[in-house]
Amino acid sequence: MTDSNSSVSQDLSAHMESLGIAARQASREIARATTAQKNSALLAAAASIENHKNILLLANAKDLDHAKASGQDAAFIDRLTIGEKGILSMAEGLRQVAALQDPVGEMRNLSYRPSGIQVGRMRVPLGVVGIIYESRPNVTADAAALCLKSGNACILRGGSEAIHSNQAIAACIHEGLKVAGLSIDIVQVLDTIDRTAVDHLITMKAHIDVIVPRGGKGLIERISKNASIPVIKHLDGVCHVFVDESANIEKAIAISMNSKTQRYGTCNTMETLLVHSAIAARFLPSITGLMREKGVELRGCAESRRHIPDMLEASEEDWFAEYLAPILAIRVVPNLDSAIDHITRYGSQHTDAIVTELHVNAMRFLREVDSSSVMINASTRFADGFEYGLGAEIGISTDKIHARGPVGLEGLTSQKYIVFGDGHVRS
Amino acid sequence: MTDSNSSVSQDLSAHMESLGIAARQASREIARATTAQKNSALLAAAASIENHKNILLLANAKDLDHAKASGQDAAFIDRLTIGEKGILSMAEGLRQVAALQDPVGEMRNLSYRPSGIQVGRMRVPLGVVGIIYESRPNVTADAAALCLKSGNACILRGGSEAIHSNQAIAACIHEGLKVAGLSIDIVQVLDTIDRTAVDHLITMKAHIDVIVPRGGKGLIERISKNASIPVIKHLDGVCHVFVDESANIEKAIAISMNSKTQRYGTCNTMETLLVHSAIAARFLPSITGLMREKGVELRGCAESRRHIPDMLEASEEDWFAEYLAPILAIRVVPNLDSAIDHITRYGSQHTDAIVTELHVNAMRFLREVDSSSVMINASTRFADGFEYGLGAEIGISTDKIHARGPVGLEGLTSQKYIVFGDGHVRS
Repeated sequence: MTDSNSSVSQDLSAHMESLGIAARQASREIARATTAQKNSALLAAAASIENHKNILLLANAKDLDHAKASGQDAAFIDRLTIGEKGILSMAEGLRQVAALQDPVGEMRNLSYRPSGIQVGRMRVPLGVVGIIYESRPNVTADAAALCLKSGNACILRGGSEAIHSNQAIAACIHEGLKVAGLSIDIVQVLDTIDRTAVDHLITMKAHIDVIVPRGGKGLIERISKNASIPVIKHLDGVCHVFVDESANIEKAIAISMNSKTQRYGTCNTMETLLVHSAIAARFLPSITGLMREKGVELRGCAESRRHIPDMLEASEEDWFAEYLAPILAIRVVPNLDSAIDHITRYGSQHTDAIVTELHVNAMRFLREVDSSSVMINASTRFADGFEYGLGAEIGISTDKIHARGPVGLEGLTSQKYIVFGDGHVRS
Repeated sequence: MTDSNSSVSQDLSAHMESLGIAARQASREIARATTAQKNSALLAAAASIENHKNILLLANAKDLDHAKASGQDAAFIDRLTIGEKGILSMAEGLRQVAALQDPVGEMRNLSYRPSGIQVGRMRVPLGVVGIIYESRPNVTADAAALCLKSGNACILRGGSEAIHSNQAIAACIHEGLKVAGLSIDIVQVLDTIDRTAVDHLITMKAHIDVIVPRGGKGLIERISKNASIPVIKHLDGVCHVFVDESANIEKAIAISMNSKTQRYGTCNTMETLLVHSAIAARFLPSITGLMREKGVELRGCAESRRHIPDMLEASEEDWFAEYLAPILAIRVVPNLDSAIDHITRYGSQHTDAIVTELHVNAMRFLREVDSSSVMINASTRFADGFEYGLGAEIGISTDKIHARGPVGLEGLTSQKYIVFGDGHVRS
């Protein structure tokens, strides 16, 4: 063969195929593993991470040197850095997942039917999960742990910039699997920096059951567009707080400030504040003053600028914007319906909250806003696997098929029907 | 424009786009509709079907004339025929769906978190469901009813051979929607016989949330391959009964006979009988005798032919075969593990049953067989929405993402997270 590119690409294709076959095989083993075995693997992996602290830091230093040499910015370097604290927190994360209840094998809703059979459902693993992520190496440990505990095999594809860190973490997880007498193919971490590996991963229908991309919008859009395997994802977090006519001003201020300023860069941060016109005169002066004290830039609709004239004017694009920054769009709306219409049109079905004292409005908002998390009198920042009690999350889904909202162990499982009879036949 | 084909195809594309937009719009209305409104639409549609019996029979006669003229076979004509009984049963089906509990808005698992918020989930419609089916016109009424009750808008694409019947049924459903004060766009039935309409339907990601194909394997394979929208489907029903060493012979005979001969052409009919070697000498003579009395052709492995020499020899293809006919493959296996391995390798993850008196084997089979329905001492023929108590089913899924097994109202919904607070913020 004279074309070396084509030869490389055929090699890669064969390599990916063999990883896929190994993962499918390993998925049967982990699906049948006992809770004790899975926990023992997680705890041994946590110990291994702590015991190999120096090796992990050295591997991470290699990645960091390379990133600095290639001129990456400070935020990138920050995401890539593990550090002593990162090592302890990875190990702690593995132990936390070990402490979570095992979802596999749970039997529910067993009830007798008129025919005499007893019908219910049993929770089972999905099979093989493909996870594609960017620079944070801790995702390697977190994602592997959630897949393992939920009885799934996984193929992890981290960023090429973190390849030494990810391989070092993988070695610790493999040590944990070996201690528990489990196959190391249960967690496979791609060792190639070839970018086309992702194209293989997201189309290996026979070997992978679901893809979870974690990273920037560009990555997720590209994967959703090209994947032939179901993808659990969210693209945007354009989250709203609606301050209703009947809102308690103090709660409205606390929730709005927390939703916007507790952290600017997270997907559950509020990007647009909707205010009922009947409360605007009382609410807008104080909230805009407090936002400005925190250094938040405000962009208002015409009506809100009647109250606060020195705000910038919001454009149509502002209503669609996920700023992930200290910028807030503000719109005054005439009623609850307009607020819901605004969220339906401009929102991203991630997380939306109402502040209201009126039960009927709370319940209408709850029912009619079609987002993965809908909140009454609470900060949008609560939309998170830990806060919801899932223990950890592999991601957040704004889709409706399969999983919605924060995805924890349960989102990595499915339910099969089970039937108990005693010689029963259908008549 | 001189190219009339391209003009037609652009017209169709614009037409489909406008259907999609109308469906998305209507989906908001039906998602918010009350249970009383939805039931009133269903009951009025049932009455309309009975009141327009003659119109329906006439429309059906048109389709039947055309089918006969184009030389369709008797089975095809049978599937296409509605008849007086079919009309009553469609109306009855609509009333049964009206009687089912409304899944939409159900709130579950609300519990307090340490932060003070109360977190739970609310069941919500998927949005817009696209259903693609073949010659049976009753699917128009059944599928529309299930989508409507679960709060979804739908676009139905029946076979071109049933177009007059389907349009007449659609008119009755529209009458029901009007009586309840609901938009008729909630149930849209495609009026084009252009086959490329399906290609549009399965790629309109912005307007349709899930596709449910109902029909032969060819249809389902084509749709799965080309759809860019999630598909709820099953391809094959290669179902097994495993008669374990400890099986009660009478139960084993009853279950095997029922699983194979109660109906030959259904997806939950047994296709391969697996027999533990330790029970083969006692079980095989009687079961093969009874199967033959029913006219079932038997194809056995070498070991089973030692017991019953006058069986045909099964080939490798027989283990993969979904006969949908009075043919049965029989294989003797040395133990439970071999039985599970056989099912894993050759099965289609549809429905598999074990006949055993040993608890530990029953539970291992239940856990380790990765099929949408797994049964202990019961006939595979029970794998059905009505038998499971779902009330009705829109299809059976052998996938693991979203829905698995018979899909009823619940499978046409999703769950969002809901959070109740009283001014709570994240610290």
